[in-house]
Amino acid sequence: MARPDEDGLITRYFAPLAGPGADGLRDDAATLSPSPGCDLVLTADAIVAGVHYFSDDPPGSIARKALGVNVSDLAAKGARPRGILLTLALPDDWTEAWLAAFVAGLGDGLADFGLDLLGGDTVRAAGPAVIGVTAIGEVPTGGIVRRRTAQIGDRICVSGSIGDAALGLLLRGPRPPDWARAMAAADCDALVDRYWHPRPRIALAPILRRYARAAMDVSDGLAGDLTKMIKGEGRSADIELSRVPLSAAAANALALEPALLPLIVTGGDDYEILCAVAPENLDACLAEAVAAGTALACIGTVTAGFGPPAFQDADGTPRALGTGSFSHF
Amino acid sequence: MARPDEDGLITRYFAPLAGPGADGLRDDAATLSPSPGCDLVLTADAIVAGVHYFSDDPPGSIARKALGVNVSDLAAKGARPRGILLTLALPDDWTEAWLAAFVAGLGDGLADFGLDLLGGDTVRAAGPAVIGVTAIGEVPTGGIVRRRTAQIGDRICVSGSIGDAALGLLLRGPRPPDWARAMAAADCDALVDRYWHPRPRIALAPILRRYARAAMDVSDGLAGDLTKMIKGEGRSADIELSRVPLSAAAANALALEPALLPLIVTGGDDYEILCAVAPENLDACLAEAVAAGTALACIGTVTAGFGPPAFQDADGTPRALGTGSFSHF
Repeated sequence: MARPDEDGLITRYFAPLAGPGADGLRDDAATLSPSPGCDLVLTADAIVAGVHYFSDDPPGSIARKALGVNVSDLAAKGARPRGILLTLALPDDWTEAWLAAFVAGLGDGLADFGLDLLGGDTVRAAGPAVIGVTAIGEVPTGGIVRRRTAQIGDRICVSGSIGDAALGLLLRGPRPPDWARAMAAADCDALVDRYWHPRPRIALAPILRRYARAAMDVSDGLAGDLTKMIKGEGRSADIELSRVPLSAAAANALALEPALLPLIVTGGDDYEILCAVAPENLDACLAEAVAAGTALACIGTVTAGFGPPAFQDADGTPRALGTGSFSHF
Repeated sequence: MARPDEDGLITRYFAPLAGPGADGLRDDAATLSPSPGCDLVLTADAIVAGVHYFSDDPPGSIARKALGVNVSDLAAKGARPRGILLTLALPDDWTEAWLAAFVAGLGDGLADFGLDLLGGDTVRAAGPAVIGVTAIGEVPTGGIVRRRTAQIGDRICVSGSIGDAALGLLLRGPRPPDWARAMAAADCDALVDRYWHPRPRIALAPILRRYARAAMDVSDGLAGDLTKMIKGEGRSADIELSRVPLSAAAANALALEPALLPLIVTGGDDYEILCAVAPENLDACLAEAVAAGTALACIGTVTAGFGPPAFQDADGTPRALGTGSFSHF
């Protein structure tokens, strides 16, 4: 079957996903305005075959990841998702079956995350697929939650569970680790699912706007991203490792292989929320997060200092984990 | 010299270009709002090494092209440029010297086109460089100039000159054509410059809003883009080839090699404006374009019909040029 040209791709696959303002993707640009009293919030992240995902990952999962990593940034800034533009650089050997599955996952992801497809571009590149997304959300005017505004004494919270995707990446890789053999299949599946399918914490966005003094999403590892949040302002952090929230599957893996702890805390692709909350707001913040269906765990405190975050066991013993950040670059 | 990591790149090269709302690129998202009474206009186009430009083109020119192809879309929609997000997928062999030159051209282009750098992403890809830009502009609310709204009887106008970049691409290519030997060096340089450096017609944007019933930019060749503008609505077009505006350099090339005419009319990368203007507005539109420093030439008329545009010599003889559109995909 002949592969369609770019106009054919747009008509067949992308136009059905177009939102209002995009004129059915039959024009070169879309219009968008924030709701009254709101600012738009813009972010752009790309994922690359062989770097951010495996080339043979399910195409629908790849699409969902490309959306999820961007929506996670919007959520961490307190923003409600509005729309995306998609730039798809396809390798020479792309197939229409791959694209159809990609677009199916894209459509599901757009619907789940509340996004319209506003535009984009499809190009051929003699290399790995590069999937670039610009995501647009909105916050009440002036309400964006910034990254570097934590204050000494603020409590540090993190959503969901940490480390699942880094463990899932090991399981998905070419040489599954020894500990995987002793794991229940359902636990392994759960961890790989977390690697494939970021769960951007959209429900926390309004809670962050109300209570978080600073926030960012955890995409390059908890330790490294926390370092980014506090660095350069005479601030450090004390983190109690036993409070870092783990899924049942990650806890099982850690019980089998205690040496996984550094990976859990420094590995990437969590797409959880990391935030700093004034002590007097902590209880309300945690309660509202539970009510919104995504728990936040308080894992430590912003301290005065210039060093990297200090990680401690429950008995106060320091643990050196490195402050390395996972880098896709 | 060690190459910087992504955070180092941001701090050293990209942060100095950041606009208001981007928080010095030290956060994961930027804020932007349209001016009061305006809609934002969004577009995204990527360029790929070896497809849209030569890998050894000057890095600053590549950056300027990545901006220009997007700003050209904004201008054709009647929009004033506001900002961009840049997604840069770098090949394994990128060098800091290349990046420094790229960023210098990017900074110049942002300043010339009135754009702020709002955000972006830098990733590594084991393939050709892929440079994705999402460009954001604004128009008075409801004022976007759409592509498919021309009416029968409208006059068809095109800005600047057509075919220069397609000729420049031939000259820039591995086997310069025979006619190049008889050309003045300055003419050859002028044509290559047009291939390297799109000149988005920002000054025409307000004039399009006032007078154009439909508009698009000419990026894939005049013939193909005109077909896109009128197709599917019982409309066709009569175009008089002698009215298609040529630069002095292109006219000289055509005099040397008359067989270049189809390339001039169907080749890509013009980044001129193609628009349809009601007859009663034509004189005012042309006069204001001249006053704004970028002439529009009236080249034909929208007709009733279902076929592709008909191209004619000055004496009315039909000329078959094909309706092919240049495709980068």
